[in-house]
Amino acid sequence: MAQPQQSEGEGADKPPLRVGMVGYAFMGAAHSQGWRTAGRVFDLPRQPVLSAICGRDPDAVRAAADKHGWAAAETDWRALIARDDVDLVDICTPGDSHADIAVAALAAGKHVLCEKPLANSVEEAEKMTRAAEEAFARGQLAMVGFNYRRVPATALARNMIAEGRVGKLRHVRVAYLQDWLVDPGFPLTWRLRKEYAGSGALGDLGAHIIDLAQYLAGERLAGVSAMTETFVHERPLPAGGVKGLSAVSAGGTAPVTVDDAALFTARFASGALATFEATRYATGRKNALRIELNGDKGALAFDLERLNELSYHDGTEPGTHAGFRRILVTEPDHPYLEGWWPPGHGLGYEHSFVHQARDLVHAVAEGRRPDPSFADGLQVQRVLAAVEESAQKNSVYTPIAV
Amino acid sequence: MAQPQQSEGEGADKPPLRVGMVGYAFMGAAHSQGWRTAGRVFDLPRQPVLSAICGRDPDAVRAAADKHGWAAAETDWRALIARDDVDLVDICTPGDSHADIAVAALAAGKHVLCEKPLANSVEEAEKMTRAAEEAFARGQLAMVGFNYRRVPATALARNMIAEGRVGKLRHVRVAYLQDWLVDPGFPLTWRLRKEYAGSGALGDLGAHIIDLAQYLAGERLAGVSAMTETFVHERPLPAGGVKGLSAVSAGGTAPVTVDDAALFTARFASGALATFEATRYATGRKNALRIELNGDKGALAFDLERLNELSYHDGTEPGTHAGFRRILVTEPDHPYLEGWWPPGHGLGYEHSFVHQARDLVHAVAEGRRPDPSFADGLQVQRVLAAVEESAQKNSVYTPIAV
Amino acid sequence: MAQPQQSEGEGADKPPLRVGMVGYAFMGAAHSQGWRTAGRVFDLPRQPVLSAICGRDPDAVRAAADKHGWAAAETDWRALIARDDVDLVDICTPGDSHADIAVAALAAGKHVLCEKPLANSVEEAEKMTRAAEEAFARGQLAMVGFNYRRVPATALARNMIAEGRVGKLRHVRVAYLQDWLVDPGFPLTWRLRKEYAGSGALGDLGAHIIDLAQYLAGERLAGVSAMTETFVHERPLPAGGVKGLSAVSAGGTAPVTVDDAALFTARFASGALATFEATRYATGRKNALRIELNGDKGALAFDLERLNELSYHDGTEPGTHAGFRRILVTEPDHPYLEGWWPPGHGLGYEHSFVHQARDLVHAVAEGRRPDPSFADGLQVQRVLAAVEESAQKNSVYTPIAV
Amino acid sequence: MAQPQQSEGEGADKPPLRVGMVGYAFMGAAHSQGWRTAGRVFDLPRQPVLSAICGRDPDAVRAAADKHGWAAAETDWRALIARDDVDLVDICTPGDSHADIAVAALAAGKHVLCEKPLANSVEEAEKMTRAAEEAFARGQLAMVGFNYRRVPATALARNMIAEGRVGKLRHVRVAYLQDWLVDPGFPLTWRLRKEYAGSGALGDLGAHIIDLAQYLAGERLAGVSAMTETFVHERPLPAGGVKGLSAVSAGGTAPVTVDDAALFTARFASGALATFEATRYATGRKNALRIELNGDKGALAFDLERLNELSYHDGTEPGTHAGFRRILVTEPDHPYLEGWWPPGHGLGYEHSFVHQARDLVHAVAEGRRPDPSFADGLQVQRVLAAVEESAQKNSVYTPIAV
Repeated sequence: MAQPQQSEGEGADKPPLRVGMVGYAFMGAAHSQGWRTAGRVFDLPRQPVLSAICGRDPDAVRAAADKHGWAAAETDWRALIARDDVDLVDICTPGDSHADIAVAALAAGKHVLCEKPLANSVEEAEKMTRAAEEAFARGQLAMVGFNYRRVPATALARNMIAEGRVGKLRHVRVAYLQDWLVDPGFPLTWRLRKEYAGSGALGDLGAHIIDLAQYLAGERLAGVSAMTETFVHERPLPAGGVKGLSAVSAGGTAPVTVDDAALFTARFASGALATFEATRYATGRKNALRIELNGDKGALAFDLERLNELSYHDGTEPGTHAGFRRILVTEPDHPYLEGWWPPGHGLGYEHSFVHQARDLVHAVAEGRRPDPSFADGLQVQRVLAAVEESAQKNSVYTPIAV
Repeated sequence: MAQPQQSEGEGADKPPLRVGMVGYAFMGAAHSQGWRTAGRVFDLPRQPVLSAICGRDPDAVRAAADKHGWAAAETDWRALIARDDVDLVDICTPGDSHADIAVAALAAGKHVLCEKPLANSVEEAEKMTRAAEEAFARGQLAMVGFNYRRVPATALARNMIAEGRVGKLRHVRVAYLQDWLVDPGFPLTWRLRKEYAGSGALGDLGAHIIDLAQYLAGERLAGVSAMTETFVHERPLPAGGVKGLSAVSAGGTAPVTVDDAALFTARFASGALATFEATRYATGRKNALRIELNGDKGALAFDLERLNELSYHDGTEPGTHAGFRRILVTEPDHPYLEGWWPPGHGLGYEHSFVHQARDLVHAVAEGRRPDPSFADGLQVQRVLAAVEESAQKNSVYTPIAV
Repeated sequence: MAQPQQSEGEGADKPPLRVGMVGYAFMGAAHSQGWRTAGRVFDLPRQPVLSAICGRDPDAVRAAADKHGWAAAETDWRALIARDDVDLVDICTPGDSHADIAVAALAAGKHVLCEKPLANSVEEAEKMTRAAEEAFARGQLAMVGFNYRRVPATALARNMIAEGRVGKLRHVRVAYLQDWLVDPGFPLTWRLRKEYAGSGALGDLGAHIIDLAQYLAGERLAGVSAMTETFVHERPLPAGGVKGLSAVSAGGTAPVTVDDAALFTARFASGALATFEATRYATGRKNALRIELNGDKGALAFDLERLNELSYHDGTEPGTHAGFRRILVTEPDHPYLEGWWPPGHGLGYEHSFVHQARDLVHAVAEGRRPDPSFADGLQVQRVLAAVEESAQKNSVYTPIAV
Repeated sequence: MAQPQQSEGEGADKPPLRVGMVGYAFMGAAHSQGWRTAGRVFDLPRQPVLSAICGRDPDAVRAAADKHGWAAAETDWRALIARDDVDLVDICTPGDSHADIAVAALAAGKHVLCEKPLANSVEEAEKMTRAAEEAFARGQLAMVGFNYRRVPATALARNMIAEGRVGKLRHVRVAYLQDWLVDPGFPLTWRLRKEYAGSGALGDLGAHIIDLAQYLAGERLAGVSAMTETFVHERPLPAGGVKGLSAVSAGGTAPVTVDDAALFTARFASGALATFEATRYATGRKNALRIELNGDKGALAFDLERLNELSYHDGTEPGTHAGFRRILVTEPDHPYLEGWWPPGHGLGYEHSFVHQARDLVHAVAEGRRPDPSFADGLQVQRVLAAVEESAQKNSVYTPIAV
């Protein structure tokens, strides 16, 4: 069996944080990059070690371990969380298995990082949050992977809002637009089945923008009025089965059981108004997570398709010279930039996972609650539930449960 | 009394279309520019003549007549519509007087152009539409001034959608963002009083985007789920009275009786989903009427702050070379461009009024129903009413009356 | 004969400024719009009156007079400048006739506005400037039509530079990119013949950017190093002759005798460096006059294809929140905006001619030297000559004659 | 001594490519990231192993080895190239040492990757190129690190140009704009001393844009007309000496001996014209490497500050729907994207080094000449020399030596 990739020289200096990861598809690759790189770029209190990766297909998980640099491979997540050389379990599976793995990993004394959405239901999320609270009392941490908080531009936006640069918030408009389902021939992957994914665009994209909007606003949503839609009701079955990685059709069709798009208006606790849209049918938009916040002192805008930029309007300036400015978020004093390149040398998508790893390692080393916690993930779940309830009830305004 | 500005040379060639305008503030200035310029740029079947302008203040209306080039001035709109030298009455007053003037003008045998929103209530709009239908049978035309249909970029968008370039429509997202009310010291002008304006951002901005969205989509909204808000409830009284032109405070405050912002989600008849937002509190956004339409063949996007551009994604192209392209809508074969400048020499806001005048003159000369008609204005009024009803009923989905 | 379009009412209030225009093609239409509109939008000390227009083809000039609203038509420019009802002669012809008309008009006691470039040679420009100086002593004004100084965004840029917001200038990069000659089948219009146009892209586009760069910088060029090129050496003859308006080929070809593109680097008097490019072969660029100025305190950038915007970087701000901001140059305190629309309601290309008319009317009324004067036009001519000289001498650095 | 970071599991499958790197500052960190990541993202024929890193300061190089994951540290580059566990020497030092190290490494039988510019003089570059040619005959490869060829968007641009989408080239305009020297208090680092850096903005930034312009154009420059300038002639000495990493002033000043900015016009072999600008004084521009190419069939534009985007105008389309489109270069069939994320999930600056490593590993495994070769680096050096010669000779047009 292969050895972990960390060099002995470094091991001598700082204690390792040994990671075991469940899942090795898209999120698995991104998280691997995060764990592998964080200690090479940032000065961390503990050095991440890629101990073991887990997946059901023995050959595929072994290949993934080799490719991504994990020392060992497991085919049963229960075996993974039982390993002595794993301090932290990183859950990168579809939502239907989050609760079981997370609760068991916490019970086994591990720290946990869980991909978003935290769960497929409020009930699961509540169970996970209770387990996280009990584990925190024992010194274990549990974090949910809303990685878009850790793009330097969004982190800067949060800082600027906390400094009062937006002032009293009036409007938030946020959308997460993709277009990979426009083709009705795109096959029915697990993301289109309720039993695996919980919901569609809502849980996948909507969860991100609900978290990001609340995080940036510094306050929570009070209620929503929603509509959801499934535009294409039947899709070809993929080769390799619904749960497989394939996006190639295999013949036969089956029903799409999740939403294709979710739209809602909302009120924040402060009275600010918001519009949300999550869709996989926005032809031409590939990964357009866009958020704009307008307050009585200023405004901020961000688009994930141009993730190194933050747009800022200082409403306190004389109108003669005022305007939205494009801050290139690559300066040495911008969040996370201390470890990277000179001004103007931008970062990419996966850097958010490097930053997530960095922050979680610090939280573990310092024993403080990570941000966002499972409780934050649960609250997002409650918003998702209110969206679904409102959509079922003719869009009636539905308060978020507290 | 002054003579109209048209030269005799031209009068010899083509019959005049003699205009009488009621109102001389912002819209009055814009419409004057439209009537004065249309025949100088386009080859029209009838030459617009600026016969008479009407306002209540004798000195102010006389000054406006001189400034904008109207031959005569009147202080009573009844006198204006009684004039023999007026063929068409152009109504540029606040919404509370639209119905009376329009119905009387039609009864007096005049053509009518009426600023949007058509009226302050569905009832008024219905009355106006009935009057328009009856007048049309007598050869008179009645048009409502949704001028944003006549920006070359939106007209091109309509053509492209009609050609099938967007395909089956899935999503429309549209917002009209301004920020002139962010300052709570901005005074209480007539636009903030229900008795004059009917509603706030909803009727002023929302009416524009409802019309434009339906016009571009080529279909009507089926229902809405809405929320509205008034952020600042009391404002200083303006010098010169609420109905005056002043935006300077005069001491004392009074309640704001209209909405500051209106947000709604909607379904189109075809099942496409839409989000709408109209607000005067979007700090940093001055006149950001933005619309994007995504269909299964392509997408279009427009922003009034860059009105010479149309953004187009051709979804039928190979992804390798596809992307939103910025069409500079200044080519000779673009709508309305035959009369203007070489490619790349852009137009401005007021050109939409020149184009409106051009199209209305053609419609009058040809005796065909203008587009948008009073019936179109009535339908927008019904959407506005549904928005208000939904907002009052806890955002419940509210079908549009047909 | 037709009467001028001005109403009697206004004539009573303010003295007229009676204009006679030579030429009625593209520039003639733009200038007509300027004269017709300036007094309707701005409060002018004298009211422009469109007295007479002149062109060689009697039918065409009569049609142009009717279309653009000129009271009379002439076919000989000598007759035009002899008219008693003409106070100001506006020269919109190709460059080969500028000197004769301007000198004669000044001799006849008229004010003069002359399109750019001022002349086809330094010698002509010198003669014109001498005539202008002598006429100024008699109270007559002579202005050259560098209208791009009068786009609100460039005027704002000039103000900001004068206020010191750019600081010590280091770099200017400026280009004027069009693409109408990419097609080798585009016919040989007068603009492609040295005997009429003097030069090609250099005199047409280069003159604009030389003037604008010096105007914004607030200083003059010291020397240039240049290369010019003619990519397509032979083009089809247009129907109607080289001097006509047609852009339709008529059979047969003839040599292109002007440059297609001109590139040069330059030094300003202060030591700042500059790059210039003027071309009609920049495929995809329609009217992209772009200028950026970088100084030790800040930077400004402008693109004529988005003429309502000015991009500004305040270099004195902390880097954390700094970035190029997009000033929407539509605020009431922006240059020329007092007469126009509310914030965010943009202007177009032809408004620069309205502003040019406004400023010239004020200068005439106040008896002050207009800006830019014929002397400014002469200086630009000297830069053009230095560019041509450098290009002929293997790009060697060539000082500008003073 | 630490072990290399590669896992044994992978070593079993594919032969290693053992790298020794000289230098550990900015470029050292970027190259480390490239070597560490390439095999985790791409399926490579040989697995890069980070064997040893070299620098003169023993503590600093040891810390760099630990941080970046290099197994061993050396303080003498001669010792590094003598190591048995090094197959390839990666030279990340200032230009004054490139020739010595590269020639010695090739003589020692190693493959070489050398940062740009290849050398500080044409003579050195010729010597290196001769050594590379001889070594290639022995099966060794030598590559120069023009990493901007390996941004997906520039690689896509090259492909599109090779496919004929730009057609006959007319214009290239290219600039590399930074602003880190605007502050005259910025200290005199090695990049500002001729003895270390060879030249200033010219060699640092100019070398990149010369290579990129020629690479994209698919042809070479024929001659240049140049001007260079040093705006600030004296700067504070940095703490730690000129050669150190510090950018903190230590008291005292010394002369800047390189150019601050270099501007030149150029002709390509085909007759296309180009403008080039390289500067560190473009206030507000952080890393704005911008290139636009216009041909008779289309145009392409790129800005390194938005490196995931390529702007493309298809000149063969009807003008009605044509415009520059923004290709988000994140599609699976875009260059280098097979290893990365789904559409719209962008890459960053350092990915170009991952791609450089990928391509060099493939070249080594296949024994084919890498692209760009030392000969390509030599040719760029000749352009740099011609620029300096022209600048010294009053900007006279200076052919590039062949």
